[in-house]
Amino acid sequence: MNKRILLAAAAALALPLPVLAQTAAPDPAALRDAALKDDVAWDITEGLTTEVGQRLAATEAEARAREWGAKKLKALGFQNVRIETFKMPLWVRGEEQAEVLGGSAQKLVIAALGNSGSTGPKGVEGEIVYFPTMADLQMAPEGSLKGKIAFVSHSMTATQDGSQYGAFGAARRSGPSTAASKGAIAILIRSIGTDYHRNPHTGVTNWPKDMKPIAAAALSVPDAEQLERLLKRGPVRMKLLITPEFKGEAESGNVIGEVPGSDPAAGIVVVGGHLDSWDLGTGAIDDASGVAITTAAAKRIMDAGQPRR
Amino acid sequence: MNKRILLAAAAALALPLPVLAQTAAPDPAALRDAALKDDVAWDITEGLTTEVGQRLAATEAEARAREWGAKKLKALGFQNVRIETFKMPLWVRGEEQAEVLGGSAQKLVIAALGNSGSTGPKGVEGEIVYFPTMADLQMAPEGSLKGKIAFVSHSMTATQDGSQYGAFGAARRSGPSTAASKGAIAILIRSIGTDYHRNPHTGVTNWPKDMKPIAAAALSVPDAEQLERLLKRGPVRMKLLITPEFKGEAESGNVIGEVPGSDPAAGIVVVGGHLDSWDLGTGAIDDASGVAITTAAAKRIMDAGQPRR
Repeated sequence: MNKRILLAAAAALALPLPVLAQTAAPDPAALRDAALKDDVAWDITEGLTTEVGQRLAATEAEARAREWGAKKLKALGFQNVRIETFKMPLWVRGEEQAEVLGGSAQKLVIAALGNSGSTGPKGVEGEIVYFPTMADLQMAPEGSLKGKIAFVSHSMTATQDGSQYGAFGAARRSGPSTAASKGAIAILIRSIGTDYHRNPHTGVTNWPKDMKPIAAAALSVPDAEQLERLLKRGPVRMKLLITPEFKGEAESGNVIGEVPGSDPAAGIVVVGGHLDSWDLGTGAIDDASGVAITTAAAKRIMDAGQPRR
Repeated sequence: MNKRILLAAAAALALPLPVLAQTAAPDPAALRDAALKDDVAWDITEGLTTEVGQRLAATEAEARAREWGAKKLKALGFQNVRIETFKMPLWVRGEEQAEVLGGSAQKLVIAALGNSGSTGPKGVEGEIVYFPTMADLQMAPEGSLKGKIAFVSHSMTATQDGSQYGAFGAARRSGPSTAASKGAIAILIRSIGTDYHRNPHTGVTNWPKDMKPIAAAALSVPDAEQLERLLKRGPVRMKLLITPEFKGEAESGNVIGEVPGSDPAAGIVVVGGHLDSWDLGTGAIDDASGVAITTAAAKRIMDAGQPRR
């Protein structure tokens, strides 16, 4: 997801101040302890996710989120609050249907990956070619996926530090372009995540310049496991209807508020998070809470007295 | 859900047998312990949910499930395996979209209740009228919901015995007809369940004879809570598009296998489960596992020697 910055605050962190400074340097530990007792970050997270909800980058909803953010920064006392817009490509989700054909006909639950191509309104049909890992897909011979639908399962497991997300995310980020380069008409990947509900995990996929995007979607974890079970019984043909659209350049933007420092020559400190979210949820974690925590931190610094930077 | 019986077995439970019986009465505890060590029930659950998947009553998928069941009963050694068909009303899910309008415009996730009416292809718009409980809806004055969309939240909590399902299910079973009787154009209910994912819980709703069904859908638990948060901020208008269809009478059926008893005059013992499932999942619990457990139990009894009944 492209990042939109809610807050770019010129805020001093707790640096040694000259002896003549009128206010004592704030104690970082005291700032931290006080921050844990206020509701600023919670209010921002709850408000943004409730009042705006989903806010896919460059959509009307993200524009509402910018207005919401600017109003909130003003209300919190930040100065020079403003919105700086820019253009970016707009990708919008369409229909999403996946169906196993033949004697075990059944629907599976999918979500198109961000930047997925379209199957067109009639959908595509093809045989599934199973790749347990991303490395297996990479080793598939050139042209071997012609007319086929690739399926990369590549199941990650839960770890306390979330470290598998980066590694297994390769199937989402570059699996589609790899499959397309070998002739696949579409690709399904197992959701990058370990939740066992039927809400597939979206997220961006990348295409080399000049490559025509193919349809690319994630299966929820139980649906990916269902497809694996079916493939153990024999060949599987599927029909996919995935119709997202690239709508050209549209307006996105940053929301900026400042805490002016006492020494303009000392530079600025930027803290921020990204305001936009995916369209399948309200982005409480990705990244309303990040926006909220950084805003609350900047407000704490502001309220502790004018910083130098 | 209407119940389709996979297995109606004429099977003797472990009753006292005449002294002259050729086989000793099987020991129930031994049957139970042995059953816990075999894979019969697991194989049925895994096979039915994988190879057939969703099997909504009276659909083509349920017909495949009957064929699957008959084949399985034969393979397990049951006698006189047969399918007895009958007609029942067929209800089929259509499109399902729910959208908050206005300054907090956002999509919510819904699933039509079984037997829901349709909004028509253009959908309906209306103001949400909030009822914390089913009792509150019942107390709403006659005509007070004219042109409005009712929302019954009525949140249940998890209990070890699942006892709240029965009580809170009233919002699903009779909430829609109650809302319709007071003039509502549609109704949303909080999913009857306590899972905190965005997969709404469907399930059947009932209409008095001669009442025209209105559109009735469940919001996932997080979406119901989102709607509650929005209602605390002020009036909420929503647009709903819910287009299921009643398709008249269609063929459903029972799958029957027998374990003939030694004494035809002693009557029969019927054990069974329902073969159909809802269309939003593979019905592993509702009721593939019930079918599987009862079939495995009947097979244990059959394999222990000919029963009397």
